[in-house]
Amino acid sequence: MSKQELTILGRAADDACCQGLASAPLDEQRAADLAKIFKALGDPVRLRLMSMIASREGGEVCVCELTPAFDLSQPTISHHLKLLRQAGLIDCERRGTWVYYWVLPGVLDRLAGFLAVPHSAKEPV
Amino acid sequence: MSKQELTILGRAADDACCQGLASAPLDEQRAADLAKIFKALGDPVRLRLMSMIASREGGEVCVCELTPAFDLSQPTISHHLKLLRQAGLIDCERRGTWVYYWVLPGVLDRLAGFLAVPHSAKEPV
Repeated sequence: MSKQELTILGRAADDACCQGLASAPLDEQRAADLAKIFKALGDPVRLRLMSMIASREGGEVCVCELTPAFDLSQPTISHHLKLLRQAGLIDCERRGTWVYYWVLPGVLDRLAGFLAVPHSAKEPV
Repeated sequence: MSKQELTILGRAADDACCQGLASAPLDEQRAADLAKIFKALGDPVRLRLMSMIASREGGEVCVCELTPAFDLSQPTISHHLKLLRQAGLIDCERRGTWVYYWVLPGVLDRLAGFLAVPHSAKEPV
């Protein structure tokens, strides 16, 4: 995925705080951008990887600690991590032999804000 | 999808409030249950349908109002709505000629609660 696409997805997540799913019908472009993020979370392995990274005290995890939790090859795990990164959910850095992953600051809270129903919409007639 | 599967997904969404993505690594079963919900949201058409239903004042929408917003056939729209329903996000009822859809109460807030980062985890070292 290009840097430009990452920026678009980042912006989609940024905008999430401003117009929620239940605020108004989404336009096609925002729906396409946000669907990529949910699609990245729509896989059990990627969701487990996200929770392993997001719940880690200190905020980052070596790929060498992620792989043993799965009955999957290192390249498969790396592919799933790449999809999470392309969706703008995590980032990584190589340090020596290993790559370290962390959740991008604020992205989960922005997604949560996008899904949360505004108070005024909680009392349907 | 069977009634039992719907119940499992409903429970996954119910549990979402109690153990967030960033609280602890997800086990395989919960990850599988929750991934189905995110996968349902991981499509631009379904995300637009969700926002059209969730943002509707009064809380429910006739399928006859949803279809014209898309350049897609009625069966295709119905299929997407079925996937949202199977994921435990919406429900529907036939009244005469038309089917009416609404978002299941609390499901979006529970998902938001699942994604939101607990305060104690917001300050990585």
